[in-house]
Amino acid sequence: MQVNVKLAKNSYPIVIEPGLLQTLKIIEDYITGNEVVVITNNVLADLLLPTVKSQLKCYDHNEIILPDGEQYKNFDSLNKIFDELIAKQCTRQTTLIALGGGVIGDMTGFAAACYQRGIAFIQIPTTLLAQVDASVGGKTAVNHSRAKNMIGAFYQPQCVLIDPLVLNTLPAQHFHAGLAEVIKYGLIQDAEFTIWLSEHHAEIMAKNPEILITMISRCCQLKADIVAVDEREAGLRAILNFGHTIGHALEVMYGYENILHGEAVAQGMFIESHMSYQLGMLDEAEYNKIIDVLTLFNFTKPNLTKAQCEQLITLMQHDKKVKTKDSVRFVLLNSIGQPELIDIKLTDLHNLICNN
Amino acid sequence: MQVNVKLAKNSYPIVIEPGLLQTLKIIEDYITGNEVVVITNNVLADLLLPTVKSQLKCYDHNEIILPDGEQYKNFDSLNKIFDELIAKQCTRQTTLIALGGGVIGDMTGFAAACYQRGIAFIQIPTTLLAQVDASVGGKTAVNHSRAKNMIGAFYQPQCVLIDPLVLNTLPAQHFHAGLAEVIKYGLIQDAEFTIWLSEHHAEIMAKNPEILITMISRCCQLKADIVAVDEREAGLRAILNFGHTIGHALEVMYGYENILHGEAVAQGMFIESHMSYQLGMLDEAEYNKIIDVLTLFNFTKPNLTKAQCEQLITLMQHDKKVKTKDSVRFVLLNSIGQPELIDIKLTDLHNLICNN
Repeated sequence: MQVNVKLAKNSYPIVIEPGLLQTLKIIEDYITGNEVVVITNNVLADLLLPTVKSQLKCYDHNEIILPDGEQYKNFDSLNKIFDELIAKQCTRQTTLIALGGGVIGDMTGFAAACYQRGIAFIQIPTTLLAQVDASVGGKTAVNHSRAKNMIGAFYQPQCVLIDPLVLNTLPAQHFHAGLAEVIKYGLIQDAEFTIWLSEHHAEIMAKNPEILITMISRCCQLKADIVAVDEREAGLRAILNFGHTIGHALEVMYGYENILHGEAVAQGMFIESHMSYQLGMLDEAEYNKIIDVLTLFNFTKPNLTKAQCEQLITLMQHDKKVKTKDSVRFVLLNSIGQPELIDIKLTDLHNLICNN
Repeated sequence: MQVNVKLAKNSYPIVIEPGLLQTLKIIEDYITGNEVVVITNNVLADLLLPTVKSQLKCYDHNEIILPDGEQYKNFDSLNKIFDELIAKQCTRQTTLIALGGGVIGDMTGFAAACYQRGIAFIQIPTTLLAQVDASVGGKTAVNHSRAKNMIGAFYQPQCVLIDPLVLNTLPAQHFHAGLAEVIKYGLIQDAEFTIWLSEHHAEIMAKNPEILITMISRCCQLKADIVAVDEREAGLRAILNFGHTIGHALEVMYGYENILHGEAVAQGMFIESHMSYQLGMLDEAEYNKIIDVLTLFNFTKPNLTKAQCEQLITLMQHDKKVKTKDSVRFVLLNSIGQPELIDIKLTDLHNLICNN
């Protein structure tokens, strides 16, 4: 299965195939030059790196291994990558390969964007979240201690190679968290896909490879359609942030190491759907459908204290989506598949969020 | 006088006018949004910042002041910029203004490229070097402790605003160093301009405003012509590195704080011209013309010890222009205005450089 991301320049394919990692022949079409550096984390260095390396034998290949976790998606890790690339005398003809989840993909992409002002890179996403979201669309970044993804670049990979079988080695909690972004695509773009997800709940949870291919490629296609229209997030792309205004603030509040991104987005979708309902945008039947699909996939409505609500509101004012000094921008829903950008005044936020 | 940099996307003007800084009305056409942050250094904060600020009164404006010097063109300064932009809650609608030389321009441009994955910026170059070179063409970067300009981006400004009168406040040594890049444009692209420079030597040194406008705009046009063909340095743009293969190595050898970039490039042009002569590319008459113009503008042939030569050769192997592990790429000259990229084998370098 192949999905093409069509851009003015730098179009590229997303190839989705069970067992792809065992027969990486295809990667040779996308490596420029003779030098390859695989960037991965210490967990995948044991699990998947040997398989990938065994297929790069005809290249001058190296690896850089970073500690695992969102808390390491920072300038220190980025500097470690630059130090090693320079120590290895890597030239502009080097290709970086991101073998990992969103953290590895975002940092490798940003390092590729900046090293010598830009070298080639390939995404091999190994988590569900990265396969359906982070690896597609060219957003790269590191976190700042005070705000997520604050420093980065729009920089497209040569290709994205997705093997759904690697999800068998993914911890159950991470697979579950990734499903939040899958559900998000349905809620913002595709009512039919939302129904399909409910109908195939059992097969998805059992990781049926054929069903996973259908699910992942549908998500990639939905995201590719948006990115093709709005590569640099000037407009339409913003709808991908459904659940994220609250989600990002939750991650900062709990600390990145205490909540997975998908879990935070799921909680964000609960709250932002309720906001849509309170504002009269979503009717009750449609709102209940959203709650039902989230609940079916075992996500639970957040239960925040008053103090936590207040903290969230403060944190959202530091989110880069804040457009003006007296309002916060949300993606809200008129119905499933019908999102709308709404600026909510700071003075209204308290009632909308804390009455959840 | 206006020179246009014509690119596929992001074309922009370079406006060159004596007294432009006193009447910055034109800047309003290029500021997006209502927030402006001027980034400058501690020397210019006294000399020029008050004038610029007085003309930004209708914006929500702030400034970030960095220490002056190439040794501060690093990750620490970049982080300081990011910290302050976040502390000031700057959004994607913020416009950065680089008020300074190449160091400020390169760092501000790179910060603009990365902050929230890209915000607008304007160049107001205040040194001759920045006016004729660094501010034009969208190369932005910081230095790595082991190699110059290693981490950066191709990122174009909204416009470049050049006031030749600010050169009256520039230390004489910096004005002189900038002339090295001016002479370089003649040597690689324009034999006639090289003659013009010799003929107008006295007026240039006296900073005659009319002559400076002609000189600066000619340099900007020559560079804009190259950048229009090769924005991302895939080919032609490499000729701009005449004098730089040696020049960059000299800067590392002496330490960035001990030699100005232009001075290093001038020394590099002496050595690389001599290499061209030794290789039979330049004939003696043409070689002497090059030495004459460099000497007329008070640059002197470097006098390196054997040990320094060997150190230079080692350092060039860490330069990002090194393409393969056994050769170093140079821009050499067949005649004035006729450059050629030549890969020199490491084994030949010793004789070519140390017999200077």
